[in-house]
Amino acid sequence: MPKHEGVSLSVIKRLPRYYRFLGDLLSRDVTRISSRELASLMQLTASQIRQDLNCFGGFGQQGYGYNVAALHKEIGNIMGLNKHTPMVLIGAGNLGRTIARHMDFESSGFKLVGIFDDSPRVIGQKVSSLTVQDMAGLEAFCKEQSPRAAILCIPKEVAFETAQRLMKLGVNCFWNFSHYDLSLDFEGAVVENVHLGDSLMTLCYQINAAYPEDE
Amino acid sequence: MPKHEGVSLSVIKRLPRYYRFLGDLLSRDVTRISSRELASLMQLTASQIRQDLNCFGGFGQQGYGYNVAALHKEIGNIMGLNKHTPMVLIGAGNLGRTIARHMDFESSGFKLVGIFDDSPRVIGQKVSSLTVQDMAGLEAFCKEQSPRAAILCIPKEVAFETAQRLMKLGVNCFWNFSHYDLSLDFEGAVVENVHLGDSLMTLCYQINAAYPEDE
Repeated sequence: MPKHEGVSLSVIKRLPRYYRFLGDLLSRDVTRISSRELASLMQLTASQIRQDLNCFGGFGQQGYGYNVAALHKEIGNIMGLNKHTPMVLIGAGNLGRTIARHMDFESSGFKLVGIFDDSPRVIGQKVSSLTVQDMAGLEAFCKEQSPRAAILCIPKEVAFETAQRLMKLGVNCFWNFSHYDLSLDFEGAVVENVHLGDSLMTLCYQINAAYPEDE
Repeated sequence: MPKHEGVSLSVIKRLPRYYRFLGDLLSRDVTRISSRELASLMQLTASQIRQDLNCFGGFGQQGYGYNVAALHKEIGNIMGLNKHTPMVLIGAGNLGRTIARHMDFESSGFKLVGIFDDSPRVIGQKVSSLTVQDMAGLEAFCKEQSPRAAILCIPKEVAFETAQRLMKLGVNCFWNFSHYDLSLDFEGAVVENVHLGDSLMTLCYQINAAYPEDE
């Protein structure tokens, strides 16, 4: 895979969105698109799109546009979506079970290989195609399956100790749904936080700013 | 409520996080904190914190630090968390039901007043303290209850028409979980997108960048 070390974080953050829009185009049998058309679709400027995609070289041609399939595939490669990193889910409450059922892990670069919880109420339940296992078996499981990543759908209070336990088992990449800023305490961990509460408050702020007169 | 019109978007986006950290401090009975201590907790610089919080004036004192309760309350007011904007949930599948049960709407500025779906499989089910209603009754409900905001937990394919239908009913603020960029098509709508798929791909990219050698 080619390296793209010069690529800035703000470009990186736009990759999933490019990938999603290009995937939509593909599913509608669009084979090529100009930067102007793609820009209008995504509400970016054509020059920003050209700048972004030039980081990865060779997909646009003057007067021809982008090859949708090639660009989609290359952006997928850059993100490593073809790798199927083994991943465990910790916490099979409402949110955890929904994430396990709702997400398309395989097409996002992961393979969900195990689900763990410490509550007898959910241990043994089927979720998606997996059976919820007892947290007591986590060490043995990780030795055997070597997952690199974990989804944390656990209360804030146990997030720190759980992450610590996982780090010791070689799991240092986290998709973190706990209301806790994991990245602050674990140097060397790869963390993507999903703070749903922060997101809802952001919406609240926006509404408040748009409609200050509301009681 | 005081206006904060000069406040930049990047400060705004940090408000929920400040609010969360200050809330944690409050729950641990911390009554005041210096910008240096808060900075170390949140892994920001003290000067950034002072700059951010100076936008809202009057909470820090040289040599004393911030009054945690007063600052927490003021940031809550700025975000409008005390407003309880009435909100409906559209889509009571796995994700929708989980969001309804999982989120603390009241303390995030909202009140969930109705849940709607068009599937006979879920209509009539209890979710949280509400009963899932038939989408056919949406118009009558909105006339009566005047919700301003909606959570969209519906497939991408129906997101556009559903948003259009809601806009006509005066609902123009959206917490959007559909894999669809709602804000692009509706001028004047207030939209906060939660793209879980994009987030998972971002994690994948970060892992790929940290461990390029993995197969």
